Amino acid sequence: MNSVVIIGSGNVAQHLIKAVEKAPDLDLVQVFSRSHSGLKHLVPQEKITSNYEELKDATIYLICVSDNAIPSVSYALPFQGKLVAHTSGSVTLQEMSTQNRRAVLYPLQTFSKQKELDFTKVPLCLESEYETDYEILEKIASALSHTVYKIDSTQRQALHVAAVFVCNFVNHLYKIGNDICDEYDIPFAILRPLIMETASKITVLSPNEAQTGPAKRNDTTTINKHLNGLTKPNQKELYKILTKSIIDDVEKL
Amino acid sequence: MNSVVIIGSGNVAQHLIKAVEKAPDLDLVQVFSRSHSGLKHLVPQEKITSNYEELKDATIYLICVSDNAIPSVSYALPFQGKLVAHTSGSVTLQEMSTQNRRAVLYPLQTFSKQKELDFTKVPLCLESEYETDYEILEKIASALSHTVYKIDSTQRQALHVAAVFVCNFVNHLYKIGNDICDEYDIPFAILRPLIMETASKITVLSPNEAQTGPAKRNDTTTINKHLNGLTKPNQKELYKILTKSIIDDVEKL
Ligand SMILES: NC(=O)c1ccc[n+]([C@@H]2O[C@H](COP(=O)([O-])OP(=O)(O)OC[C@H]3O[C@@H](n4cnc5c(N)ncnc54)[C@H](OP(=O)(O)O)[C@@H]3O)[C@@H](O)[C@H]2O)c1
Ligand SMILES: NC(=O)c1ccc[n+]([C@@H]2O[C@H](COP(=O)([O-])OP(=O)(O)OC[C@H]3O[C@@H](n4cnc5c(N)ncnc54)[C@H](OP(=O)(O)O)[C@@H]3O)[C@@H](O)[C@H]2O)c1
Repeated sequence: MNSVVIIGSGNVAQHLIKAVEKAPDLDLVQVFSRSHSGLKHLVPQEKITSNYEELKDATIYLICVSDNAIPSVSYALPFQGKLVAHTSGSVTLQEMSTQNRRAVLYPLQTFSKQKELDFTKVPLCLESEYETDYEILEKIASALSHTVYKIDSTQRQALHVAAVFVCNFVNHLYKIGNDICDEYDIPFAILRPLIMETASKITVLSPNEAQTGPAKRNDTTTINKHLNGLTKPNQKELYKILTKSIIDDVEKL
Repeated sequence: MNSVVIIGSGNVAQHLIKAVEKAPDLDLVQVFSRSHSGLKHLVPQEKITSNYEELKDATIYLICVSDNAIPSVSYALPFQGKLVAHTSGSVTLQEMSTQNRRAVLYPLQTFSKQKELDFTKVPLCLESEYETDYEILEKIASALSHTVYKIDSTQRQALHVAAVFVCNFVNHLYKIGNDICDEYDIPFAILRPLIMETASKITVLSPNEAQTGPAKRNDTTTINKHLNGLTKPNQKELYKILTKSIIDDVEKL
């Protein structure tokens, strides 16, 4: 049975703790957290440490800390030659200390402590410094999720940017929808079915086939009506540039 | 029992035909279509006409044609004093002919003929010229969907813009995610769970609470890494302006 130590107590760490505990083929040995407080509901006290020197032996150490802390945490580990993976989309393998066998297990999903999700459906993007470690990494990842991909550093970087577009930027457009509803005294809930359907549509159509709306039709009457109606400068600017980007795409076809 | 005539044979018309046929309290009297061909699988031949003069009596006539054709179709109707509603988010009530009792039944959803959906979950936004017609309109709408809202022309205009942001523009961001995946030989399917979760998250969190990512954290290292990695000018420009819009929002809090 493969054993796991998780370092961190944030969004990803907490989802991973639950996922490891659920996986019949994995053993959660220990969790490292600077502050124990946030983990009490998830892990028995004796499995939590805030002292690197107390870290126990495990097949893999998963560093689930803020991107900028990954290098220093990797250097703080008091052992050598062990398998150590971070979970970041944007940190390279090379930024970790060479004292251990470096790897990446990047879960391509948006995690918040407050929102439950089924970890077995989270795509896991794997990379390992040594070819021989890939098999172990894959076995551990497959115990956590049904979808596992081999993704190198360049691809992972690209995926992370793609994720910013389809998650962070998309959410910001939801926020703008919410702002417009507030301005006109409309409950935001009215937009939710449209938001869900827009996301679910691309499971049967490509985003290209699914594109609709005034920009796609180059319907300048409606576009101008909308631009005149928008009162906030950032909304106007985003409307213009996104419309232009859609029109340019159509013209390229 | 209220009776319905549907004018048009496009995306909305086809979904409405199925919804009316399913509703026990509604009777589909007839469908008007310039070209019969696209409706054969949905409606018996004798219920289809391409001649306005042949239109039968009904409680409501639903004009489901392209926005720019709504006025001319409303003028082409050979009768007077009947309840006539269009289904557009952006056309005002005033753009229709005064010869009939004007109304709007705007389904706030994205429809494609190829994609099935549960019409009872589509929010219907209602408006009527005469107060006395609102009750009839509401009864018909409630037979089609569980969520019905009274929305005036100004609100509907605003909602249509909001819908462009959370549907058309969001889909364009999916398209960019797809383009990036293609460029780096990554299957687009890897992004689908993230896309679904991002949409489903705002059923439990507000878009403001759900916002994450480098822009939200003002993580300039990652932002610059991403900007350097992007090769297409439109992707770079959208990345910059969306990042700025998120940062400005955070600063306003
Ligand atoms: N959230 C997501 O949606 C998501 C998705 C995919 C990948 N990731 C990646 O997963 C990693 C963790 O993200 P997250 O969202 O879980 O972050 P988070 O919720 O902000 O948690 C960050 C964790 O890092 C710890 N930490 C920060 N600096 C530290 C240091 N110098 N030494 C030790 N621990 C330190 C924090 O400990 P304290 O509580 O003691 O401060 C906290 O437990 C990041 O690399 C991120 O890029 C996140
Ligand atoms: N699709 C959506 O997601 C959606 C959502 C909410 C509201 N709406 C609104 O619903 C309405 C219809 O949209 P749609 O997506 O169903 O459009 P569509 O699929 O493009 O279909 C347009 C229909 O209009 C007919 N038409 C166009 N010009 C006409 C004319 N001069 N005389 C008679 N018929 C004419 C077309 O007939 P032919 O086939 O004979 O050309 C076709 O049946 C629009 O007002 C739109 O704003 C659409």
